[in-house]
Amino acid sequence: MNVKVGIIMGSDSDLPVMKEAADFLDEMGIPYELTIVSAHRTPKRMYEYAETAAVRGLSVIIAGAGGSAHLPGMVASITTLPVIGVPIKTRALGGVDSLYSIIQMPPGIPVATVAINGAKNAGILATSILSVSDKTVAEKLRTYKDDLNDMVIGKAEKLEKIGHEAYLAE
Amino acid sequence: MNVKVGIIMGSDSDLPVMKEAADFLDEMGIPYELTIVSAHRTPKRMYEYAETAAVRGLSVIIAGAGGSAHLPGMVASITTLPVIGVPIKTRALGGVDSLYSIIQMPPGIPVATVAINGAKNAGILATSILSVSDKTVAEKLRTYKDDLNDMVIGKAEKLEKIGHEAYLAE
Amino acid sequence: MNVKVGIIMGSDSDLPVMKEAADFLDEMGIPYELTIVSAHRTPKRMYEYAETAAVRGLSVIIAGAGGSAHLPGMVASITTLPVIGVPIKTRALGGVDSLYSIIQMPPGIPVATVAINGAKNAGILATSILSVSDKTVAEKLRTYKDDLNDMVIGKAEKLEKIGHEAYLAE
Amino acid sequence: MNVKVGIIMGSDSDLPVMKEAADFLDEMGIPYELTIVSAHRTPKRMYEYAETAAVRGLSVIIAGAGGSAHLPGMVASITTLPVIGVPIKTRALGGVDSLYSIIQMPPGIPVATVAINGAKNAGILATSILSVSDKTVAEKLRTYKDDLNDMVIGKAEKLEKIGHEAYLAE
Amino acid sequence: MNVKVGIIMGSDSDLPVMKEAADFLDEMGIPYELTIVSAHRTPKRMYEYAETAAVRGLSVIIAGAGGSAHLPGMVASITTLPVIGVPIKTRALGGVDSLYSIIQMPPGIPVATVAINGAKNAGILATSILSVSDKTVAEKLRTYKDDLNDMVIGKAEKLEKIGHEAYLAE
Amino acid sequence: MNVKVGIIMGSDSDLPVMKEAADFLDEMGIPYELTIVSAHRTPKRMYEYAETAAVRGLSVIIAGAGGSAHLPGMVASITTLPVIGVPIKTRALGGVDSLYSIIQMPPGIPVATVAINGAKNAGILATSILSVSDKTVAEKLRTYKDDLNDMVIGKAEKLEKIGHEAYLAE
Amino acid sequence: MNVKVGIIMGSDSDLPVMKEAADFLDEMGIPYELTIVSAHRTPKRMYEYAETAAVRGLSVIIAGAGGSAHLPGMVASITTLPVIGVPIKTRALGGVDSLYSIIQMPPGIPVATVAINGAKNAGILATSILSVSDKTVAEKLRTYKDDLNDMVIGKAEKLEKIGHEAYLAE
Amino acid sequence: MNVKVGIIMGSDSDLPVMKEAADFLDEMGIPYELTIVSAHRTPKRMYEYAETAAVRGLSVIIAGAGGSAHLPGMVASITTLPVIGVPIKTRALGGVDSLYSIIQMPPGIPVATVAINGAKNAGILATSILSVSDKTVAEKLRTYKDDLNDMVIGKAEKLEKIGHEAYLAE
Repeated sequence: MNVKVGIIMGSDSDLPVMKEAADFLDEMGIPYELTIVSAHRTPKRMYEYAETAAVRGLSVIIAGAGGSAHLPGMVASITTLPVIGVPIKTRALGGVDSLYSIIQMPPGIPVATVAINGAKNAGILATSILSVSDKTVAEKLRTYKDDLNDMVIGKAEKLEKIGHEAYLAE
Repeated sequence: MNVKVGIIMGSDSDLPVMKEAADFLDEMGIPYELTIVSAHRTPKRMYEYAETAAVRGLSVIIAGAGGSAHLPGMVASITTLPVIGVPIKTRALGGVDSLYSIIQMPPGIPVATVAINGAKNAGILATSILSVSDKTVAEKLRTYKDDLNDMVIGKAEKLEKIGHEAYLAE
Repeated sequence: MNVKVGIIMGSDSDLPVMKEAADFLDEMGIPYELTIVSAHRTPKRMYEYAETAAVRGLSVIIAGAGGSAHLPGMVASITTLPVIGVPIKTRALGGVDSLYSIIQMPPGIPVATVAINGAKNAGILATSILSVSDKTVAEKLRTYKDDLNDMVIGKAEKLEKIGHEAYLAE
Repeated sequence: MNVKVGIIMGSDSDLPVMKEAADFLDEMGIPYELTIVSAHRTPKRMYEYAETAAVRGLSVIIAGAGGSAHLPGMVASITTLPVIGVPIKTRALGGVDSLYSIIQMPPGIPVATVAINGAKNAGILATSILSVSDKTVAEKLRTYKDDLNDMVIGKAEKLEKIGHEAYLAE
Repeated sequence: MNVKVGIIMGSDSDLPVMKEAADFLDEMGIPYELTIVSAHRTPKRMYEYAETAAVRGLSVIIAGAGGSAHLPGMVASITTLPVIGVPIKTRALGGVDSLYSIIQMPPGIPVATVAINGAKNAGILATSILSVSDKTVAEKLRTYKDDLNDMVIGKAEKLEKIGHEAYLAE
Repeated sequence: MNVKVGIIMGSDSDLPVMKEAADFLDEMGIPYELTIVSAHRTPKRMYEYAETAAVRGLSVIIAGAGGSAHLPGMVASITTLPVIGVPIKTRALGGVDSLYSIIQMPPGIPVATVAINGAKNAGILATSILSVSDKTVAEKLRTYKDDLNDMVIGKAEKLEKIGHEAYLAE
Repeated sequence: MNVKVGIIMGSDSDLPVMKEAADFLDEMGIPYELTIVSAHRTPKRMYEYAETAAVRGLSVIIAGAGGSAHLPGMVASITTLPVIGVPIKTRALGGVDSLYSIIQMPPGIPVATVAINGAKNAGILATSILSVSDKTVAEKLRTYKDDLNDMVIGKAEKLEKIGHEAYLAE
Repeated sequence: MNVKVGIIMGSDSDLPVMKEAADFLDEMGIPYELTIVSAHRTPKRMYEYAETAAVRGLSVIIAGAGGSAHLPGMVASITTLPVIGVPIKTRALGGVDSLYSIIQMPPGIPVATVAINGAKNAGILATSILSVSDKTVAEKLRTYKDDLNDMVIGKAEKLEKIGHEAYLAE
C-alpha cells in the first residue's frame, strides 16, 4: 500500500510529541512517512515538500510546530491536501503562541488544528479523513473508539468495586 | 448527488457566521444540509444526529458553537466521521472560551478546529477532505486557490500602479 | 441513608484531585457514589448516568473534567439536578481551558463551577445545597466553618507568640 | 410563600444584568428579594445581610459583582447558605477579573460561579437547588428545559424548511 | 517607638513570601506587627483588625493574599489607612487571579498593589509612605536606594573586568 | 498650602482619565500640580521632574501611562517619594500591557499600582497617604467613605421600595 | 536614490495601518516600495520577493500581517536583510495572535517586532537601521526625536498654563 | 575593529540568557561590549550609557530585561541607534509581562523586540543590521543561514534513514 500520510515537524525536538501520531497510524496499519521540514530553516525544502505531496500520493499531511509555528499554514498555502496542525507546547507561553500561529489562518487557507501537543489526535483525525473513502479504515476506527469506551468502563467498574482509596493505592 | 456535509450550529444566532461554510460549499457545488443542533438544549437530538450521520451518507460534519462550546466535541465522541469545529466569537472573551472548549479534546476524540469565526475555512477544509477521494473536487479546490492567488496579485499590481494614497481613496 | 451525591470524573487521572470531594462528604457523613464517566469516550454511559441520576435518588452531581471539559455541562443538559463542575488543572494551559469549557454555559443550562482543582469546595458546596432542606447538615456545616475559623485563629496566635522566624523554622 | 432567594449586587450599574435572575424566578413563581449590597462601600451592611440571611428564611443567595468582585465570596464566608456568584463583564478586561475574583476561592468557602453576565443561569441554578427538596419546583424546571428543547427544535425545523437565506432575511 | 505597619496574610502558606516585607522593615528599623487574618475563614477577625488598625496606631497595612484575594480590598473598605496589596503566586494561574482580585477595585476604595509575590516592595512602599512625614525614614530610604545603585555598579564593574564567562563560572 | 501631589501623564490623550485624580484632590482641598511628562519622548524632563519632586515639596506622585508604560517606574527609580501608577486602557490589549509594565517592578523600586483607568482611586490613595500624618485629611477621607456608604444605602432603599422594573425605567 | 525599504503586507485591509510606515519614510525622504505579498495566498510571490530583495537593492523589509501572521517570519527565513514585523490588530484576539505568530521565532531567524499596529514605529526603526551607515539619516532622526520632545514640552506648558479644564474643553 | 554592539541587561540574573547574544557575535567575529545597566536601580548610569553610545562608536544596542522591563525602551528614548529588546522569561507570568513592557512602545520610539529569552536571535538581528552596510558580515550571515539549512537537512536525512524509534533512542 502506498504512503498515505506525511508527518512533518519543524525540529527534531518535536519528535517525542509527534511520534504519537506515527504510533497511532502504525496501530491502524496506515503507511506514512515521517521527517523534519522547517519552514524557517529550510524554506525551499518546505516548499518542495508541500508542492510534491499530492503528486507523490499523500492524502493527508500532519505538521507539528512550536512558537511562531508557520509550518502547517505554509504547507497548507501550497498544497490542496488537508493539513492537520499540531501546536507544540512551549516553555514560556505553554503553547498558546504555537496554537494561535497555527489556527488563526485567513479565509482561503484552513489548517485542521488539534490540541496543544495533541499529536495522537492528529493521527486519529488523519485516519478519520482517510476513512471517508475507505470502509476498512472506518471500521478500524469504530473498533478503536469502542475499545476506548470499553477500557473506560472497565476502569470505572474496577473503581466502583474496590473504592477510590484502593484504586489510588495501586 | 447525495448530501456530503452536515453543517450544524448550537444556536440560530451562529447562523450569520456559519452561513459562510454553506456559501463556500455552494460555490464548489457540494451538497450539504444545514440545521440547528444544540448539545445543551437538545441533547437527544444531538445524540441522534451524530449517531445517524454516517448512515445517512454524510462524509464530514461542520459544527459551530460558542462559549462552553460542546457541540463539535460531543458529535465527535459519537461518530467516526471527521468533525470540523468552528469556535464562535463571544462578547466577553472574544471566543477564547469557544476555542479552548473545542480544541483541547482528550486523546482519542479529535476535532479539526479552525480559526475563531472561521466558518468559510471550515467549508474549505470539508472540501479538502472530500477531495482526498474525489479528483473533480480536488481540481475545483486547486482552481479556487489559484484564483485567490491571482486576485491578490491583481490587487498588488493595482496598488503598485496607482499608489497607496489613491488606492485608499477609492 | 440513601446516596445523595454522585461524584464523577472524565478520567481516572482526575482521581487524586476529585478524591477531596469524597473525603469532605465522608467527614460530613453524607453518602455518595464515585465513578468514572467520560463524555467523550463513553457518551452513552454519560447519557444514561445523567438521565437516571434523579430517579436513583441523587440530589447533587459533582463532575470534574479537564481540557475540553464537557462532562459537567453535558450532564447538566440532561438532568435538572444541580451540577457542580470542577475544572481540572492542565499541563499546557493551567486549567483555563477546563474553566472556560465548564463555566461559559449558555442561558438555560447552568453549571455551578468552583475553582481550578477545587474538588474540596465542590464537596462543601454539595453539602451546602443539601443543607437547604436538612438542618442537621446545616449545623454540621456551621461547625465545620467555625472550626476553620478557630484553626486559623490558633495559627495566628501561635505566629504572633513565637514570631515568624520560629514559625517558619518549624 | 416566604422569600427563598436573595439577589444582591455591588452596584446599581449591575442591575440590567442581574435583573435576568429575578425575571427567571418570577417565571418559576419563586419569591425573592433584590437589593444593592456593596462589599467595599457598605461592608457593615454586607456583613449583616450575610449573617441574617438564613435566619430571615433565605435558602440561596445570588450575588453579582464586577472587577475586584468580593461580594459573593465575602457573603459565602459568613453564611452557610449556598452562594451563587455572577461575574459582571468589565470594560477593560471583559470580566476575566470578575471571574477570577469570584471563582478562585480557597478550600473551605466555595462560591457556585456561573458564566460572565450569566445572571439568568444564576436564577436557574437557584431554582435547581430549591428543587432538591421541592418536587413542584423540580417539575417546573423539567418543563422549562423541555420547552427550551422544543423551542430549539422548532427553530431547527423552520430553518430546514425555509433555508438559511430566508431565515436570515426575516 | 510604636508599631507603624501591620503585615497580614490570608494563610500561613503565604508566610515565606510575606516575610520579605518584615525583613525590609527590620532593616529600616520600622516597628511592625505580623499575623494571619483570613477574609474568608475569619471574617469577623478581619473586620475587627481593619476597624481598630488606625486606633491602635498603625499607619499602613500590608496585606498578602492569593487566588480570590479579598483580604486587601476588604481591609481597605473598612479602614482609611493606606493598604498595600501583595498578590501571591498561585499554582494554576501564576497569580493573575490574585492580581486581578486585588487591583481591580471600584472607585472609592483603592488598594496600592505591588508585583506578584512582591512583598519586599510592599515593605519598601510602606517605608516610602512613612517617609512622607518622617525625614529620618526618608534618609534611610535614600541610602538604601543609593546602596542598591552601588551594588549594581559593583557587579557591572566586576563583569566588565573578568568577562561573562568567568562571571558565570563563579 | 504648598502643592502636595504631582499628577503627571505620558500623553495629553491620557488627560480625560487622569483628570479624575485631580477632581478628587480638588474635592478634598489638597493642592496639586498637573502636567505632561513623557518617559519616552522627554526623558530629560522626566529625569528632572523626578529628581526635583521632593525638593519642590511634593509628597506623592501620581503617574498615568499606557502600553509600554515606563513613566511610573522610572520616576520611582529616581525619587524616594511614593509613586502611584495608573495603567491606562489600551485599544489592542485593554490595558493589560500598561498594567504589567507598571506593576511588575523588580525588588527595590515599588510602584503603588491601582486599577486600569483607576485615576480616581489614585487620587484617593494619595489622600490616604497624606492622611497618615494629617488628621484633617484623615477625617475628610472618613467622611468621604461614610458618604459613599450612605449613597449606596440610599440607592438600595430606593430600589427595594420601587422595585427593579421602576428603578431601571427611570 | 535607490529604493531602500520594502513595505509589504498580507492583505489590502492592512493598508490603513501600514500606510503610517510609508508616511514616516516620506517625511524622512527615504525611498521605499509598497505592495501586497501574502504568505498564504501567494506563496510563490512571497518566496520571490524575499529572495530578490537584497539583489534589488533593498536594505530593510517591513512586513505587516494579522492572525496567523506568517509573512514577516517567512520573508526572514529566506533573506538575510533585517525584517521588521508589524502585528496587525485582529477582531477576536486584539492582535495577540498576530504578535505571537510574528515574535516567537526559533533561534536562527529573528524578526524585529514592533507594537500591535505599530507601523509608524516600523518606519522609524527602518530609518534607525539605515542611520547606522548614513549620518544624514542619523541627523534627521535626531531632529525628529528632538521635535517630538519639543512638541510634548509645548503641550505640557500649555496644559500647565491654561489648566486641564480649559485644555480638555478645546 | 571597534566595538559595534553594546549588550546590556537589567540584572546579572539575566546573564545566562543574554550570553547567547554574545556567543553569536563571537561566532561572527563582531566586537561587542557587555555589561549590567539597570533602568530602575542605576537610572543615571542608564542615561549616560544611552547618551554616549553613538559617540563611543556603537552601532546597535541589545538590551535584555524582565518583568516591568523598562531598559530597552528607556535606552531607545535617549539614543537614535537601533535598540533590540530581549524579554526575559519571568516566574509568575512566563515573560508576558516583559514582552508587553518592551514591545508596546508609543509612536516615536520603537524597540526591535525578539522572542521571550530570544537573546541568540538578538545577536543575529544585530548582525543583520550591521550587514546592511558591510558585505563581509552579510556573507557570513548568509553562510550561517545556509549551514542552518544544511544541519536541518542532515538531521532529516538521518531520521528518514534510521527511523524515529532509533533516532529517539540515541
